[in-house]
Amino acid sequence: MARLETVEGYRIAPDPARPGLTRAVSGLDQAGQPIEISVVEERPLTIYLNRQEIVTAMTIGDYPEYLALGFLRNQGMLRPDEEIVAVDFDEEVETVVVRTARETDYEEKLQKKTRTSGCAVGTVFGDMMEGLEGLNLPRTQVRTSWLYALSSRINRTPSLYLEAGAIHGTVLCRADEPLVYMEDVGRHNAVDKIAGWMMAESEPAEDKILYTTGRLTSEMVIKCAQMGIPVLVSRSGFTAWGVEIARQVGLTVIGRLRGQRFVCLAGEERLLWDADPTAVPPEEKKHRRKSAQ
Amino acid sequence: MARLETVEGYRIAPDPARPGLTRAVSGLDQAGQPIEISVVEERPLTIYLNRQEIVTAMTIGDYPEYLALGFLRNQGMLRPDEEIVAVDFDEEVETVVVRTARETDYEEKLQKKTRTSGCAVGTVFGDMMEGLEGLNLPRTQVRTSWLYALSSRINRTPSLYLEAGAIHGTVLCRADEPLVYMEDVGRHNAVDKIAGWMMAESEPAEDKILYTTGRLTSEMVIKCAQMGIPVLVSRSGFTAWGVEIARQVGLTVIGRLRGQRFVCLAGEERLLWDADPTAVPPEEKKHRRKSAQ
Repeated sequence: MARLETVEGYRIAPDPARPGLTRAVSGLDQAGQPIEISVVEERPLTIYLNRQEIVTAMTIGDYPEYLALGFLRNQGMLRPDEEIVAVDFDEEVETVVVRTARETDYEEKLQKKTRTSGCAVGTVFGDMMEGLEGLNLPRTQVRTSWLYALSSRINRTPSLYLEAGAIHGTVLCRADEPLVYMEDVGRHNAVDKIAGWMMAESEPAEDKILYTTGRLTSEMVIKCAQMGIPVLVSRSGFTAWGVEIARQVGLTVIGRLRGQRFVCLAGEERLLWDADPTAVPPEEKKHRRKSAQ
Repeated sequence: MARLETVEGYRIAPDPARPGLTRAVSGLDQAGQPIEISVVEERPLTIYLNRQEIVTAMTIGDYPEYLALGFLRNQGMLRPDEEIVAVDFDEEVETVVVRTARETDYEEKLQKKTRTSGCAVGTVFGDMMEGLEGLNLPRTQVRTSWLYALSSRINRTPSLYLEAGAIHGTVLCRADEPLVYMEDVGRHNAVDKIAGWMMAESEPAEDKILYTTGRLTSEMVIKCAQMGIPVLVSRSGFTAWGVEIARQVGLTVIGRLRGQRFVCLAGEERLLWDADPTAVPPEEKKHRRKSAQ
């Protein structure tokens, strides 16, 4: 699969210049003057598991193989030890087929989803909590200095967000290092692409930190826990249920991470307070990301 | 159904103080000091159409009847002229049952959705475009002075966003007046609640402007068009497909509306340039909303 090595330290970094991810669209500005702005693409990708059509996702279209793998994994349709025979992407018909050694049939699960999930509506709690029973997230330590380093590093990384806005970002990190930075129009797609990459690379989860630009909702918290990542960080806010679930499964959630500030509402025991917040420089305006809503 | 008259001019305005919408959650701040912050609630609401369970949505929980009506309407499961016999909300079991005079059965449509929609993943184009064939949105005029007035008015309206953040807002407006301001953890829920209110009140759509804090994606554009509202405005950005669809259906889309600035990428012919942007005061920081991602 495609890999970018352009940004120092990253295994995968955003490639805002990559053709097909954005489009120049012309219109009028507030003065009625013609203006051309860069706008992110949004296209359907239909994911098959062997013979079965599973879902059509709206995506910017990069890393379709990782998106397919990660989506199926996060839906519990691929087992942790699943033997993947092939992942075939057909750009023309915008489909990805994930082929497994094992015969798969999720007709029943999909039937169930009809009753619990609608278009762009969250899934029901019981369904989402699938596979979280008996989950035991590792007690890895998180230095607060890492949080500031990650935030500042990620904000300065060239991205589609900085280029065109209106996009979500999710970054897989280890200690103070961002490793894989995925973006997508769908917040969950960005996370699923990370999950797909981890699966393809057999990357361990216990030493990782997941950074997201989006809100810490129940779905985001559950996804992170299902991926086995013990720490979830966001510049954005929380929902009460997201915090509750994080506490239930022993996940560390840190939100509202901007400049010197952050709030930790669950899993504080993992934090090691080695940084002096007052020594942290405020975010430069041009790198200041808005919080998602 | 509950109605708030507290904020001048609004038919419905946010009620941040309403019990059950937010919860005080305690944690630690960046200095390791105990902090208590206000966090929005997120709870499941299961929607039934007559005898059939349709979906479970994650919502803050206000206006469940409007959410149910609007969701079913925007899914094409209620006809424009549908005779609603009753809308029964049961708080204890968190369900809403919408009862129609007509016998309904959407088993097949729901089957279809399984193949095209997954949890928190967008629906497929063909499915979304349902009911947009032959749509003819009215050629109503929009004064640019209205856009500035609405933006400033909405930003200053007390809201859950200003209180707790991490929430989407959608506002139904007429000319320079915000009428109905709905918020929800799910961006589409806020829009659906507006649609439900319009249906319950038999409110005409042709003279309305829909303001959203979220991005102008294909789904948002399609929803607005399906509701028959000719103008969609956002402080946030665009996706290329959202713009394309807006141009196809003749919808006016205005994005990046902040302070003096905005961009119009479709339906410019509705705009009347009656305002001098340079005379518009910049947004006050404390009222400055972040753009959604």
